[in-house]
Amino acid sequence: MTALEDMLQAEEAVLPENRVNLPQDEIPTRYYNIQADLREPLPPPLDPKTKQPVNPALLERLFAKELVRQEVSQERFISIPDEVLEAYARIGRPTPLVRARRLERFLKTPAKIFYKAEYLSPTGSHKPNTALAQAYYNSKQGTERLVTESGAGQWGSALAMSAALFGLKCRIYMVRISYQQKPGRRTMMETYGSEVLPSPSDATNFGKSLLAKDPNHPGTLGIAISEAIEDTVTREDTRYSLGSVLNHVLLHQSIIGQEAKKQFESIDVQPDVIAGCIGGGSNFAGFAYPFMMDKLKGKLDAEFVACEPKAVPSTTRGVYTYDFGDAAEMTPLVKMYTIGHKYLSPPIHSGGLRYHGKAPSLCALINNGHVRSVAYHQNEVFQAARTFAQTEGLIPAPETAHCIKYIIDEALRCKETNQDKVIAFNNCGHGLLDLKAYEDFLAGKLIDYEPSKIEVETYVN
Amino acid sequence: MTALEDMLQAEEAVLPENRVNLPQDEIPTRYYNIQADLREPLPPPLDPKTKQPVNPALLERLFAKELVRQEVSQERFISIPDEVLEAYARIGRPTPLVRARRLERFLKTPAKIFYKAEYLSPTGSHKPNTALAQAYYNSKQGTERLVTESGAGQWGSALAMSAALFGLKCRIYMVRISYQQKPGRRTMMETYGSEVLPSPSDATNFGKSLLAKDPNHPGTLGIAISEAIEDTVTREDTRYSLGSVLNHVLLHQSIIGQEAKKQFESIDVQPDVIAGCIGGGSNFAGFAYPFMMDKLKGKLDAEFVACEPKAVPSTTRGVYTYDFGDAAEMTPLVKMYTIGHKYLSPPIHSGGLRYHGKAPSLCALINNGHVRSVAYHQNEVFQAARTFAQTEGLIPAPETAHCIKYIIDEALRCKETNQDKVIAFNNCGHGLLDLKAYEDFLAGKLIDYEPSKIEVETYVN
Repeated sequence: MTALEDMLQAEEAVLPENRVNLPQDEIPTRYYNIQADLREPLPPPLDPKTKQPVNPALLERLFAKELVRQEVSQERFISIPDEVLEAYARIGRPTPLVRARRLERFLKTPAKIFYKAEYLSPTGSHKPNTALAQAYYNSKQGTERLVTESGAGQWGSALAMSAALFGLKCRIYMVRISYQQKPGRRTMMETYGSEVLPSPSDATNFGKSLLAKDPNHPGTLGIAISEAIEDTVTREDTRYSLGSVLNHVLLHQSIIGQEAKKQFESIDVQPDVIAGCIGGGSNFAGFAYPFMMDKLKGKLDAEFVACEPKAVPSTTRGVYTYDFGDAAEMTPLVKMYTIGHKYLSPPIHSGGLRYHGKAPSLCALINNGHVRSVAYHQNEVFQAARTFAQTEGLIPAPETAHCIKYIIDEALRCKETNQDKVIAFNNCGHGLLDLKAYEDFLAGKLIDYEPSKIEVETYVN
Repeated sequence: MTALEDMLQAEEAVLPENRVNLPQDEIPTRYYNIQADLREPLPPPLDPKTKQPVNPALLERLFAKELVRQEVSQERFISIPDEVLEAYARIGRPTPLVRARRLERFLKTPAKIFYKAEYLSPTGSHKPNTALAQAYYNSKQGTERLVTESGAGQWGSALAMSAALFGLKCRIYMVRISYQQKPGRRTMMETYGSEVLPSPSDATNFGKSLLAKDPNHPGTLGIAISEAIEDTVTREDTRYSLGSVLNHVLLHQSIIGQEAKKQFESIDVQPDVIAGCIGGGSNFAGFAYPFMMDKLKGKLDAEFVACEPKAVPSTTRGVYTYDFGDAAEMTPLVKMYTIGHKYLSPPIHSGGLRYHGKAPSLCALINNGHVRSVAYHQNEVFQAARTFAQTEGLIPAPETAHCIKYIIDEALRCKETNQDKVIAFNNCGHGLLDLKAYEDFLAGKLIDYEPSKIEVETYVN
């Protein structure tokens, strides 16, 4: 990487524009809800039996009331409670907007690359933005105990931290194979005081029935969701918590993009390209939707790009239709891009990008052309991640690196066309708990998986 | 941890004072050198054969010239080059000063607890503060290649990142047993582009001679140092880099305490207690010395407390005398508190606190009563770490947790005596790469090791 030496020759004192901090008292105090600005209302979730819209009131047995209210709200802005703002300050909000100037120089691009540093939270990702809000609303209505499922563990550790900060008990059903293979994430959750059970577990009837057949059942995310829901509906003191996909989760994440907008305004810059990776869609939405508001109103002419793995091509090769949100068919039917709720994801390292569908609002925006999506293979993604680490100093999460691959390509296109576009992305997680993936990459062991078989049934005509 | 619920009742909106940010253009632009303010000059390093002071010029074959100049400088302030300030901005400096208000409430203490968030760097510790400076000074004088040794890996990964940012090659001799047991740290260094060799290696004559006797030699830090030095002196393009103990390393870290002083001044608060953990002494010195300057001048009445493990009690049970800095007896003799350069550290999880000696300036300050030191066992340290994680949201490094144990005890003493002391500490690292240690703690597997045999020879009367 001796080409970096070139950069040093041209190094200038460039402090202020490299890192745009937002004063703490300028943190946004409202969440932004994109439902207010969509030209058509989102297709409602349907009861799989009746094919009729689900009554939101039924959801209150699963989720805190205020979260259900937010889920279906058409209000553009929803006030953030002081207690949540205090918790955001605790985890380091507002996060900086950083100009990736060393990466620009390395690429010799006229483009300007900015990222929002969401990886700076104590658990290493953007997930606490909603976990803290969900823990708060639950604690306020008297919930004593939160339950969720966890695969890779980013969400589980964020909720475990948030439960600790708001004095709630927390139980996490962790897919057994991850429980065994990712002891670090499990240890994080336990250190925060949460109870972590390998799923299937003997704590639910569903889990017990599976263990009776196979005591070493490796588990799936679908099974873990089923156990978490069974746990929730059988205990009055308990509510369920979800880390992505749902509208209320996406709107909590809007704190990211609202901060970023203020930061761009403070340096009198407007982004031309806004990018993020997509698993369920919450980090992309959180960063992009406040800008999308301006685009939908004709005030911003920017391109929005969502990045996903080729091995799980929900939006690049999926169908826009009603499908179940989970493998176990326990959720309502949701209109979204899907590669089928029984899709068997190849074992890519980006555990956070293995979901078969995406958030309904994001899918609507993709469907009507407001968001474009792109897909990459693992090795090109990790090559981009390594370039980012060696130029900017930070080792990104494999999920985030999908987006870094895109922005590097886009910056190189700008070099060819001599365009000084402003490219902005959400740097949503660091990779310090994913070093095994980097080890495999450096050893040449990463496989560029083709997608599994895509089967999408039609439930609603 | 349901006692946390109490806290919530009393939650107020307390944003501004929770997190004190320093504007980027107010970053200190000079390093502070405590040698200017010590009443007596530090006892010089001695040649082990002649017992005469080492000629600094000889050190220039090992270290960059400017670093050798700083090592013996008596100037109070040394300008920080613009390029290093730019690199500091890149890694997130200035770091916030954070009030640990939730911890205070949990402890029901009238004390005010503040910490400097040094864990926020891309490699998770304060180490880049000096690694970046060392990489810069080397690149400026034309060094093409840096070499160092690494045990636990915090230092190695910081230097690997810094070498990448300043376009230098980097080779790290990593103790073979750590190389095998800590693949994550090794992967970090390799991702940044460094070459990592298990030590003993076949890249040096010394390493080869050891491998000839035992091809699976587990290695020691002493052996790794010897290999790194042999590598350095046999290649003209190469310089050696050290992560703690030396004066120039400590003064680079003074950026921490200088920022903290400005931050305390901005809220009109003065600390009464200043604490940090000590391995070689650089994180403690970096945080404490700028305050110590005021104490030595009679302008600040504060207590300084250094925290170490009972299993490696360099300053609490060591002797203040001349000893070798390394097990292999390759360094000059240095006057310091030591438990003997052949001390066999019990296998505590805090790899960064296993050094037999401490920085000479810190030892002088302990010897003349300006700094007090305390020591703790592993289990009480991890209990404190868990309390911190559950109240403040952050899982600290085991090293840092030694200091957190002290500040929790001190805050509880304040509760008994009803004193509203301001307690400040350096939160020098996060624990996301030490989760195995937490796993052992939670499983009740941590051993509270007694110290090994302490044997200190007398080399200089």
